[in-house]
Amino acid sequence: MLENIDLSQAISNEEYKKSIKTLQVELGELQRKAWELKIPIIIVFEGWHSSGMGEDINRFILPLDPRGYDFHTMVLPCDEDFQKPFLLNFWSQIPVRGKIAIFDRSWYSRAIIKHYGKEKCEEKLEKCLEEINWFERQLSDDGYLILKFFLHISEQEQEDRFKEIKKKGIPLIIGEYEKRNRKKNGKELDFIHEYNDYLPIVEKVLEKTDMPHAPWTIVEANDRNFATLKIIMAVTRAIESRIEQVTTIPGQQTIKYLDLGSPKLPELNSSVLEKIDLSKTISSEEYWKSKKLYQQKLETLQYELFRKKRSLIIIFEGWDASGKGGNIHRLVEELNPRIYRVVPVGSPSDVEKNHHYLWRFCEGIPKTGHISIFDRSWYGRVLVERVERLCREEEWKRAYREINEFENILIGTGAIILKFWLHIDKETQLKRFESRQSNPQKSWKITAEDWRNRSKWDQYQAAVDEMFQKTSTTNAPWIIVESNDKLYSRIKILKVISETMEKELNT
Amino acid sequence: MLENIDLSQAISNEEYKKSIKTLQVELGELQRKAWELKIPIIIVFEGWHSSGMGEDINRFILPLDPRGYDFHTMVLPCDEDFQKPFLLNFWSQIPVRGKIAIFDRSWYSRAIIKHYGKEKCEEKLEKCLEEINWFERQLSDDGYLILKFFLHISEQEQEDRFKEIKKKGIPLIIGEYEKRNRKKNGKELDFIHEYNDYLPIVEKVLEKTDMPHAPWTIVEANDRNFATLKIIMAVTRAIESRIEQVTTIPGQQTIKYLDLGSPKLPELNSSVLEKIDLSKTISSEEYWKSKKLYQQKLETLQYELFRKKRSLIIIFEGWDASGKGGNIHRLVEELNPRIYRVVPVGSPSDVEKNHHYLWRFCEGIPKTGHISIFDRSWYGRVLVERVERLCREEEWKRAYREINEFENILIGTGAIILKFWLHIDKETQLKRFESRQSNPQKSWKITAEDWRNRSKWDQYQAAVDEMFQKTSTTNAPWIIVESNDKLYSRIKILKVISETMEKELNT
Repeated sequence: MLENIDLSQAISNEEYKKSIKTLQVELGELQRKAWELKIPIIIVFEGWHSSGMGEDINRFILPLDPRGYDFHTMVLPCDEDFQKPFLLNFWSQIPVRGKIAIFDRSWYSRAIIKHYGKEKCEEKLEKCLEEINWFERQLSDDGYLILKFFLHISEQEQEDRFKEIKKKGIPLIIGEYEKRNRKKNGKELDFIHEYNDYLPIVEKVLEKTDMPHAPWTIVEANDRNFATLKIIMAVTRAIESRIEQVTTIPGQQTIKYLDLGSPKLPELNSSVLEKIDLSKTISSEEYWKSKKLYQQKLETLQYELFRKKRSLIIIFEGWDASGKGGNIHRLVEELNPRIYRVVPVGSPSDVEKNHHYLWRFCEGIPKTGHISIFDRSWYGRVLVERVERLCREEEWKRAYREINEFENILIGTGAIILKFWLHIDKETQLKRFESRQSNPQKSWKITAEDWRNRSKWDQYQAAVDEMFQKTSTTNAPWIIVESNDKLYSRIKILKVISETMEKELNT
Repeated sequence: MLENIDLSQAISNEEYKKSIKTLQVELGELQRKAWELKIPIIIVFEGWHSSGMGEDINRFILPLDPRGYDFHTMVLPCDEDFQKPFLLNFWSQIPVRGKIAIFDRSWYSRAIIKHYGKEKCEEKLEKCLEEINWFERQLSDDGYLILKFFLHISEQEQEDRFKEIKKKGIPLIIGEYEKRNRKKNGKELDFIHEYNDYLPIVEKVLEKTDMPHAPWTIVEANDRNFATLKIIMAVTRAIESRIEQVTTIPGQQTIKYLDLGSPKLPELNSSVLEKIDLSKTISSEEYWKSKKLYQQKLETLQYELFRKKRSLIIIFEGWDASGKGGNIHRLVEELNPRIYRVVPVGSPSDVEKNHHYLWRFCEGIPKTGHISIFDRSWYGRVLVERVERLCREEEWKRAYREINEFENILIGTGAIILKFWLHIDKETQLKRFESRQSNPQKSWKITAEDWRNRSKWDQYQAAVDEMFQKTSTTNAPWIIVESNDKLYSRIKILKVISETMEKELNT
């Protein structure tokens, strides 16, 4: 979930000051409403060291009524803490109905510290995360609103901040606990200098515990103004929508909540796609040379895949006219049709619509030793079906997790999954649409639907961004392919596939 | 979940014929309604070999419109089946909306066959069950009604049936597949003669996959009439209530379903408690001798518990005046108060009510090395709170799973859990109530509440039965203690505790 996060976002002090005022008033108001309605709220803050958590939390609690929240920070556990399941300590800290409990580090940090670097780390951590999921689900079922923030900074930013902190002579409070803990266990635990060692663990924790009822919000925290605004906005929106739920579901509550008329605020979610360098290109000569090289590699690798009884699933998604068809054509040119198949995915039939949406893809999943190439895929659920409102909001929101579980099952039986997003800009698309329309051999490729989709570019972009964040898992990542230059696009894809296969098949 | 099942229940042919007619008409009608409302239904049958599954399923499908259901039986998997995640084969068999899919053995049998007796069996099976839970949750979220039946017979009954089958020369169809599978793997797989080897695996599977949205119904199948009626009644009730849900939730469906006016049927759920032999008694001499013996044992064992850093949780539940207090008194007589504590549980305070119901028990959970004795416990949620309607139906139904998860977390850090149900009959209770009332030293013990509870004996009995079935897990079993004779009761408890501790602490 931390891949593809744009950490360059920033908000000027001036703009920050303007927005924060309104937000703080709104937040204070919402807190009082939540108290009246007895909505219990749990807010978890986790993040990299020196991600500015303390400062951000402080800016967040300033507008709150102190009688209405409890602040819990992770301290050096006393002996007694080690004598009970650690989750129980947190269980006893859940808020009374109507209050907000703020956790400055939480069960997540405790789980990582407890297991990181120790024997059977992965296995035990996994069990721990399962228990955390039980815990949060039980609370959510009981009406608790759970919000979880991960403050994300880059390694470089972290280093810079450490230097600054050292210069100022501020003690690293959490570091103290870890230092003692390290001594106690005689382990080489260094939370501060091991950003990259931690990354996979953090990724795993986020992936395994991102639940529809207790989702993670990744906060781009290189810029503190941006981080604070994002946190406060997320909290106000969540409380607002919970209040609406509670006051409108019949039979549950009767008090009608008055709309505060929230003012327009700066849109914080800039798109990962906008940062993609679409000027990338390669020469025709380079193209032909590389194409031959990788196609030959793939020809050999497909048999290795077959021998090793693995399977390969390649998913192509992308803008209309981004070159999916052409790419697939070059990919399969030298492959054996007894091993590969292309699965084109259009809109579902009536029968398909009358099943669970994943049902229609079962048939196309490759057997061991085989390759399936999906020209569009189950991701339609969170793209076209979301944007065109072909399914309910609740349905596409649930789908991220469902898709991750589905892919997880496939990976469990040896499948390699690669997901390509073919990215072009609006101008390139327009040019390609026009050229298709004027070419009688290609005009079948362009329909009214394509123009309709184009007109909803921004909505699709938001859907693509969320899809990247929620479904780019460690075992099944999304690869964004710069496709303004078709040649560049094709080579990148051939290269990624052969390199991944080589790695997975140990050749 | 298979413990405490009363397999002696039976229904005469005459009564069966009378009931089945009405039920079959009703079932046929409900199928048509479900079809109109496009409710997809999945019915899973699992069970011991020769539990009569084929016959019961047949009796079940007879009244159905053949156009409205699909029947899937587990067959010898072809090679292709082994080349995809096995769950996918079942995924592609889910019914179209409005239809019923009947699985004569299912993903559960496949999961067991796939892993039983093989390397890392437990670990792999667990992963498998997790995936199955994903699968069922996804379907349920999408509106599928999922019903799962486990046909339970005793080992003796199974043996008798095998003999009968052999005599009649009927081929064991499923046995055939297993035989081939056994040969293939060169393993000693014998589904037929290993009832007791299977039992813990079956228990695990049932426990781990008994979800509120896809619950297991254990069918007492020693008597076929009883089994068939129980199955059909469970299915009709589930469809009926789903239809009601679908037709009354606003905004979802508008068709109003007409009540079929279901006739009174024989009540099938006889109580485990009714079969308990309450005449058990011991002599006073035996009592004093045993009491001394076990109390001395426990005195030593408590220090062993402390040394080994384990903990012990003892729960006392039972009828009013069943002797909980007296029992606890004898239990702690020789224990060290620095190690044990008694946690009395009354009705929750206002603050406690304003938290998740498990919150108030966190404090009483013992630290490692310690013992907590709960005089009443979190089981109040599914007993008094259920019967007195102090919580919503949805809440106590969810609580079985929540309690199992909670206890699982405790066990994970080394806790030993023992749960005693002190059972007396109504007459004994009355006698004790009266004696309390007439004794000025004891009259404080009896309140109006006790008389009120007594008047709801049957409702409590049903709640206790369901509690046994849903929360008697392999690691934290319920022990029913015959307590008409107080002396017998006390010794049984002391004995069970010391024996369990000896076993767990390897002394």
